[in-house]
Order: sequence, then C-alpha cells, then structure tokens
Amino acid sequence: MNDLTASVRAFAEERDWQQFHTAKNLAMALAGEVGELLAEFQWLTPEQSDTVMDDPEAGARVRAEIGDVMIYLTRLADVLGIDLEEAALSKLDEVAQRYPVQQAKGSAAKR
Amino acid sequence: MNDLTASVRAFAEERDWQQFHTAKNLAMALAGEVGELLAEFQWLTPEQSDTVMDDPEAGARVRAEIGDVMIYLTRLADVLGIDLEEAALSKLDEVAQRYPVQQAKGSAAKR
Amino acid sequence: MNDLTASVRAFAEERDWQQFHTAKNLAMALAGEVGELLAEFQWLTPEQSDTVMDDPEAGARVRAEIGDVMIYLTRLADVLGIDLEEAALSKLDEVAQRYPVQQAKGSAAKR
Amino acid sequence: MNDLTASVRAFAEERDWQQFHTAKNLAMALAGEVGELLAEFQWLTPEQSDTVMDDPEAGARVRAEIGDVMIYLTRLADVLGIDLEEAALSKLDEVAQRYPVQQAKGSAAKR
Repeated sequence: MNDLTASVRAFAEERDWQQFHTAKNLAMALAGEVGELLAEFQWLTPEQSDTVMDDPEAGARVRAEIGDVMIYLTRLADVLGIDLEEAALSKLDEVAQRYPVQQAKGSAAKR
Repeated sequence: MNDLTASVRAFAEERDWQQFHTAKNLAMALAGEVGELLAEFQWLTPEQSDTVMDDPEAGARVRAEIGDVMIYLTRLADVLGIDLEEAALSKLDEVAQRYPVQQAKGSAAKR
Repeated sequence: MNDLTASVRAFAEERDWQQFHTAKNLAMALAGEVGELLAEFQWLTPEQSDTVMDDPEAGARVRAEIGDVMIYLTRLADVLGIDLEEAALSKLDEVAQRYPVQQAKGSAAKR
Repeated sequence: MNDLTASVRAFAEERDWQQFHTAKNLAMALAGEVGELLAEFQWLTPEQSDTVMDDPEAGARVRAEIGDVMIYLTRLADVLGIDLEEAALSKLDEVAQRYPVQQAKGSAAKR
C-alpha cells in the first residue's frame, strides 16, 4: 500500500497538481470514476456482471476503472493522513459487532 | 492488502452474504458509500475540506466513510479476481504516458 | 416545472443558503442523494427493484429519495440558468439520432 | 413534465429497451450520468463552477449532462409510478418543517 501511495503522490507532485488535489476535489474525482465503473455494469444482469472479466474488452475496461477508483481513493486518504487499510479494518470490526454472525446469517437487512 | 481482502471475504462468508455480493450489487454499494463520503464535503470550501480531520467528529465520520469505500472496493476486486494495487499501478503508468510531466505541469486539462 | 423551481429557490433564499449553493456544491449534493437512492436498490434483484413501491416502507423511502434528487437537480439547473425539461428534450433528440430505431432495436449496446 | 415522461417512454419502447429498464438498472444509469456531471466540476473552484455556462464548450457539456440526468430520473420515476414534481414538493415541505426559517438562517448544519 505504501508503494502505491508514494507513486500516486510522486505522480501528482511532478505535475504540480497538488494545487488541485484538495480533499473536496478528490472526493468528486473519486465519485466520477465510480460513476464510470457503474456504467460498465448498469445493463448487465447480476449473473452477467460476475463473468464480466471473461470478456477481454469489458474486462480490461473494468480493471482500468477499478484502477482509477483506487488511485483517487489512495490519493484522498494520503492528503487527509488516513491509512486506507487501517480505516477499512477498523470499520470492518465495528460492522462485525453490529451484525453478529448468528443474527446476520443470510439475512437481507444489511450486507 | 491480502490481509484486508481475506478479512472482508471471511466477513461475508461467515454471514452467508456471498449470494448478495455480485459484482453489480457491490459496484452499487461502493457508489452508495462514495455518496456518503461526498456528503461530508459538499458544503465545505476546498480549504475547509483539507482540514476536516482536525475536527474530531467530522474527522471520525470521514475516516469511517473512507473505510466503508475501501471495504466494498476490496470486496468487488476480490469477486472479480482483480489485484487492486496492480490495477492502480498499471493505470497510473498508462496515465503517466498520456500526461508527460513537461506538458502537464500545472495545467488544468486533467489532474 | 416553474413552480418547483420557484419553490426550491424561495426555500433556499429564506434560509440564506444561496451562499452554499454554488454549482460545484449542488452537483456534490445531487450525487450524495443519488447515492442514497442507490442504497435502496443495491441488494434487490432487478425483479424486486421493480416492485419496490408495493412495500409501504421501502416505497416511501424511494419516493423521498427521488424527491431529494429532483430538488437538487432543479436547484442546480436554476443556478446555472438551464431549463431542465428543454435540456432533457434536446438531449433526447440527439440520442435518438445516434441510435436510430431500426438499428437499436433490442440491442444491448446502449439503452 | 408529462410531455417529457411520454417522450422518454416512447423513446425506450420504440427501441424495445423496456427489458433493460428495471428500477435497479435505471438507478445505476442515473448515478453514472451524475458521475459525468461531477467530472465537469471536479477541478473548478466554487467560483469557477458558477460561471461554467459562460464557456461555450464546457457550458454545452454541462447542459447535455444535466439533460442526461433528467432523462434517466424521469424514466426511473415513470417505471416506479412516481410523479417527480409531487415527490419533490412533498419532500420540500417535509424539509421545511425540519429546518424552520428562523433557526436555519445562514447556518451550516444542513443546506
């Protein structure tokens, strides 16, 4: 993770793009990329969506969009001083307590 | 990264939630969480957005939302068989070639 | 349409909220509300999504979220001086020319 | 509003696209279009965002994106049997009661 954070930071600094990389702007850019990712799945059935990587062209587009999302998420976490993996693990702990295995099993209330 | 992927996968499997975790559904859940993240920044000026972590309450909410986004992005990449870090690094390479340092410096065309 | 635009404008002006209603902020607020709308559909099958209004609680939430989306879209169009209905109709004309009936019929390329 | 709803419905029916227009899919398409709209504003300052219509090229793109968002919102409301304008007005009433003018004036808690 640290490698990726450093690479994305260097990429921005070499181009003098830090001036554009406020948290607000990066959150918008992240959302824009997620919108492009959604567009890959919007007309697929759930079953088709699960085999999208079998199609070379659609698979390459999905992989590239996921890369874009990860780039902006990494950059946003970096400018805010948040460790992405730690933030995810601590949130997962919190959700695990809210949805204990026995009660949550197979239920549709939250997944 | 592998730890997080494994933790999120175990979390889903223990609750029998794989049935809900199609790529299509996970992409929607990811977008829903990004929407909640946007809501934290929508009325802040760009300057205020950069110091959001100085506020204990807003900072905790932003960290939790970023955690949620990372959880669903990790899970989506896992069900599609995509390595998140590799996808981001290879996309970064591609973008670096499209925006060479000398031409892109400080320009507003793409950041 | 003019009634709604006027009502939303009056609502904002009475509360001195014009200062927060830049196009950038309103676009973010719109996206945040769309994220909440997505959350209503994310774990439903396509078939379940079509009958969501039969469930009184979920139906009321969906109606309220669609209301929120429409409020921010109306307000954004208003601050930009765009007529929503005209913008939609002229875009529909453009798309109709790009996807002539005979070629587009039932095809999955764009819907 | 009824004209637009009828036009969008006819557009879909002529192309046999009703099969793709589940509420779930349309919510995703709406979110995808909102993502494209966000991309128009993401690197602009709030001040720049307010004058985006002065730029002929950017202004035309913003108008087209807002048209796309309105098309999918209209179609989604149609398949769910929701009257867009009514849903927005009744939500506005509800929010007006939650944020009375005297208390909400100029405050940052919700806009």
